[in-house]
Amino acid sequence: MIERRKTRRINIGKVPIGDGAPISVQSMTKTDTRDVGATIAQIRRLAEAGCDIIRCAVPDDKAAGALRYICAESPLPVIADIHFSYKLALLSLESGVQGLRLNPGNLDKPEEIRSVALAALEKRVPIRIGVNAGSLSKGWRDKVHAGECTTPEAMVESAMGHIRLLEEHGFDLIKLALKASDILTTVEAYRLMSGRCDYPFHVGITEAGTSRSGIIKSSIGIGTLLLEGLGDTIRVSLTTDPSEEVYTGIRILQVLGLREAGPELISCPTCGRVEIDLMSLAERVERYLSTEKTPIKVAVMGCVVNGPGEAREADVGIAGGKNQGVVFRKGQIVRRVAEKDLFNALVQEIERIKMERGYLTRL
Amino acid sequence: MIERRKTRRINIGKVPIGDGAPISVQSMTKTDTRDVGATIAQIRRLAEAGCDIIRCAVPDDKAAGALRYICAESPLPVIADIHFSYKLALLSLESGVQGLRLNPGNLDKPEEIRSVALAALEKRVPIRIGVNAGSLSKGWRDKVHAGECTTPEAMVESAMGHIRLLEEHGFDLIKLALKASDILTTVEAYRLMSGRCDYPFHVGITEAGTSRSGIIKSSIGIGTLLLEGLGDTIRVSLTTDPSEEVYTGIRILQVLGLREAGPELISCPTCGRVEIDLMSLAERVERYLSTEKTPIKVAVMGCVVNGPGEAREADVGIAGGKNQGVVFRKGQIVRRVAEKDLFNALVQEIERIKMERGYLTRL
Repeated sequence: MIERRKTRRINIGKVPIGDGAPISVQSMTKTDTRDVGATIAQIRRLAEAGCDIIRCAVPDDKAAGALRYICAESPLPVIADIHFSYKLALLSLESGVQGLRLNPGNLDKPEEIRSVALAALEKRVPIRIGVNAGSLSKGWRDKVHAGECTTPEAMVESAMGHIRLLEEHGFDLIKLALKASDILTTVEAYRLMSGRCDYPFHVGITEAGTSRSGIIKSSIGIGTLLLEGLGDTIRVSLTTDPSEEVYTGIRILQVLGLREAGPELISCPTCGRVEIDLMSLAERVERYLSTEKTPIKVAVMGCVVNGPGEAREADVGIAGGKNQGVVFRKGQIVRRVAEKDLFNALVQEIERIKMERGYLTRL
Repeated sequence: MIERRKTRRINIGKVPIGDGAPISVQSMTKTDTRDVGATIAQIRRLAEAGCDIIRCAVPDDKAAGALRYICAESPLPVIADIHFSYKLALLSLESGVQGLRLNPGNLDKPEEIRSVALAALEKRVPIRIGVNAGSLSKGWRDKVHAGECTTPEAMVESAMGHIRLLEEHGFDLIKLALKASDILTTVEAYRLMSGRCDYPFHVGITEAGTSRSGIIKSSIGIGTLLLEGLGDTIRVSLTTDPSEEVYTGIRILQVLGLREAGPELISCPTCGRVEIDLMSLAERVERYLSTEKTPIKVAVMGCVVNGPGEAREADVGIAGGKNQGVVFRKGQIVRRVAEKDLFNALVQEIERIKMERGYLTRL
């Protein structure tokens, strides 16, 4: 079991973060925030995909104003992503956002920081401080360059500076992100920071690349940190449909046992022993399970001889051989069926298990 | 930098494993081994994809015989995957395989183990011992069930038993795999084993599932171990085309800095600030780079204002804005171009860099 780092609790709207709360999955809309209809439609799709929290870019006043309508309609709590403008932060708070992403050190004047901190504190709206290795201040870049500190150290110290600017005003509803596109740098930065404060962590690998590479990079980076107990909310950044970000984030949590899995499919890599079309069978089963909510472990194995034993941990499974296959439960063969009937026999057995466990009446 | 575990060196044909050798990527043919033509064709494709070592299932005498022709033609060293038959192991050795995958404890008699160990030793052919959580012997399963040990402990002890059966005959060309479909179990088993012996590790997550989930699971499991310095050769197991296994394995090594990367694409997740079609642009650049061998870091960013700075680490990049975009190198804008010319301008700049670095003359 993974032992999670002890942190304070914050709440983004109805979603608790830190202090043992379930690890939430975030994404960011890729629509123009000023287009309320398109943004709401995308948020709804992401909510259906299982997203817990959504972030929207706020490039100008019009976007900050649009957030009023977006927050009113959104099924998910909304975080405003602000770069340098305290006015946009204040406008977003007035619009009803439940979180801000803002680095106070990037604001121009101390009064600006103060006004944002006090307005957010009054509404109990947390602020995420996000330090990116790629956008360290010139001062920190110079220190790294001169060999006076490493990049992870510079990221942590830079974040500590931002934190102090908020704490000065009694503001402690803080969440931290330390992202780099390099996995080792990211992992090391979070490790260092875990010894420096108890604010919850927002974990991700920034600019993780196109879908294929991005999934690999995010899985390693986020997965490694989660295995060490670091991470209270996660975002997978991909240059693709944000549903993919949500799907990947949820799967990362599930494969680490950090989120109830719904159904899980295990299937063997086919090899020269396999006499059936295992790939399309496994894909068919995956499609079937994608609408299934029951936490059930399903195996699709190629080999009648070894398959049931190797997939002993599965609640139910099928293994195929020439012309004939088997259905098994916890490694024990319960039925032999013709190859063409394997899929239907599996579905039947799953329904039977759901009945036995009382899931069907609940559904 | 990752500090790798110190291990002994073995060689699978021309490919060194352990003791600081580059981490190799393995895959397994999914053809019928008895079909020499199809198997060779698949091995050639995998070699082109960057695979270092290939494994073939050996279900019967005919397959073991076919290995003679496969080994003669294969551009990659071939490992014979044997389950319970010492005869198939001996036949495969005669056919010229450069590695065996075989658990000596699964053979029936001591003489069988001895004959395989001596024959392999004579030919200097290493044996991989692979313990799967799903196929532990009944004795170990019972101990786990009775709470006398954990699954990772049972896996390690079971592997130690297999090792001793080979060491008895002076055989030490050993490589170890400890796989489970559960990431935590796998990671823990390798960690435990790293303190017990110095044989090189073959690392993977078994039955990792269909392509989507499997990539996530393998990336986390293999990536976490590699970050800890554990792993001398890897295999990503996916229920799909084995080229996907190779591609994913290579990317895991590259994103961890464990293999020269060729080109690397970083791209930002698009957000509401982005005014161009970043996704298709990034995909176009990825396609272009897929045939490029130069180790160059290329960024595709959505935002002219923040993009170049955030992607400062990239050798070259483009960032798009309404109608106009920029080409930048190491964060410095070098050219402004119309949006429609961004792709071509990037390609030109990449060619220029290759020229400067002397890659073009080498190609």
